[in-house]
Amino acid sequence: MNQSKLAGFGAREAEEPPQQFTVVGIGGLGEIAAGDDLLMLVGNAIEDEISTGDILVVTSKIVSKAEGRSLKADSREDAITAETVRLVASKPHPGGVTRIVQNKLGLVLAAAGVDASNTPDGTVLLLPEDPDASARALCIGLRQRFGFDLGVIITDTLGRPWRLGQTDLAIGAAGMAVTHDLRGTRDDFDRPMDVTITAVADEIAGAANLVLGKTSRRPVAVVHGMDHLVRPLEEPGARTLIRPVEDDLFRLGSAEARLEGFHEGFAAGQRSTVESAVIAEGSAPA
Amino acid sequence: MNQSKLAGFGAREAEEPPQQFTVVGIGGLGEIAAGDDLLMLVGNAIEDEISTGDILVVTSKIVSKAEGRSLKADSREDAITAETVRLVASKPHPGGVTRIVQNKLGLVLAAAGVDASNTPDGTVLLLPEDPDASARALCIGLRQRFGFDLGVIITDTLGRPWRLGQTDLAIGAAGMAVTHDLRGTRDDFDRPMDVTITAVADEIAGAANLVLGKTSRRPVAVVHGMDHLVRPLEEPGARTLIRPVEDDLFRLGSAEARLEGFHEGFAAGQRSTVESAVIAEGSAPA
Repeated sequence: MNQSKLAGFGAREAEEPPQQFTVVGIGGLGEIAAGDDLLMLVGNAIEDEISTGDILVVTSKIVSKAEGRSLKADSREDAITAETVRLVASKPHPGGVTRIVQNKLGLVLAAAGVDASNTPDGTVLLLPEDPDASARALCIGLRQRFGFDLGVIITDTLGRPWRLGQTDLAIGAAGMAVTHDLRGTRDDFDRPMDVTITAVADEIAGAANLVLGKTSRRPVAVVHGMDHLVRPLEEPGARTLIRPVEDDLFRLGSAEARLEGFHEGFAAGQRSTVESAVIAEGSAPA
Repeated sequence: MNQSKLAGFGAREAEEPPQQFTVVGIGGLGEIAAGDDLLMLVGNAIEDEISTGDILVVTSKIVSKAEGRSLKADSREDAITAETVRLVASKPHPGGVTRIVQNKLGLVLAAAGVDASNTPDGTVLLLPEDPDASARALCIGLRQRFGFDLGVIITDTLGRPWRLGQTDLAIGAAGMAVTHDLRGTRDDFDRPMDVTITAVADEIAGAANLVLGKTSRRPVAVVHGMDHLVRPLEEPGARTLIRPVEDDLFRLGSAEARLEGFHEGFAAGQRSTVESAVIAEGSAPA
């Protein structure tokens, strides 16, 4: 990170976090439709709540709706396929198969993020085309409108391995640090910290979900007190929170990886028998 | 859930969440040592902040320290082995191998939760023996002391597949709902919700981490405004957030699952060659 770019942004990478913060859910945006001016609508809705150094959290659903990312529901399976870069795992359920995939945004999630709740009947909704870019456009516009610095997070609701239940995560971000890097800091016993990087944008996304619920009646939250994370627009977005697949120990479902290994092993086992038979033939005493 | 047990607890399972909440970090507990009366120390620290319906968040580190879960650092690898129920994945790093395991608590995490930061030199710290029980003891004691209802969460910092950075999760909980179940609710278009269960205890744990940082100077947070989640003590704890291994598509690291499959496939491949050779011998025209 370029320290000179942080002048005036109150950066305190290795400092203690603030002692408190508050999250306020905001409604009153009405039903968002394709082509709506989200910047204006969100700006109007948060006008009385937002102040300098706040972080605005917006659910991806209204971003997608404004971006016109809606499709006919009967093309849902095709939409999932089109959004999929890589199948990670699949699981049969009554009436079909849940596909957990890595999608075009790099996110690993069920159904590639193609969503059928809180959408008009007969339609499904894709995730925003580029949530970091959407966050950036909102951040630029809102900074201009209000005349002060703020950060923006766009969220989605995702399941996770090993634990039940879903949590909201940051799939887009702008004008803020998405991580808090503790590497190089010392613990209370003056030793380097074991724990290195906190995914603060994900923790804020989850916090905001606690006041948003799951209907579009309250699709926006304002977070007061996290101004130490607000940064210039050059700061990288939420995409940087995605673990590169080559570093991922769970890049493939256990059953899928096992099957891949089985096929390789099967071929190798056949070869080894043939080879040992050849060796046996060649070397055996007549 | 037994509705009759919820009388007086303001349960609103399918209602909108509160419009806002506030998280306050609390310090001043000093260094916690084995045998310390955590109930008294935490109670004293939060006395001026806590009120009815609040949720108290406590980092597992101070719970472990009070419970005397400290070991000599030179037995760290042995401690990890002892805490491990099942090896999930492993990854070499400079100077050793990181083991991702399912530990005695059912949690899947690196090094079985054996922690070497913020512990006195030459020691490592195990997770609390039973974090739900520790949360319950705190919850009972604090409810008695203050004379009102509150919930308790015990947190730990965990990595996750697919995403970089760590977040805090609830490894123990008492006196509160750890999930918010949306099944059966309708979306804005009057259709059943796709999204079913929100892991609210994990989202609150992550929110609290935003004011705690990673040193023991501020190991406790009070969450105001989540009183709709406060429940009788009979409510199940954070253990219920752990996905049963048989339902887990990522129960084994991809490389480990692949290797398992390879060995099985290899044996099957050898058998198949032998069998086809036998068939070929028996059926081939002489």
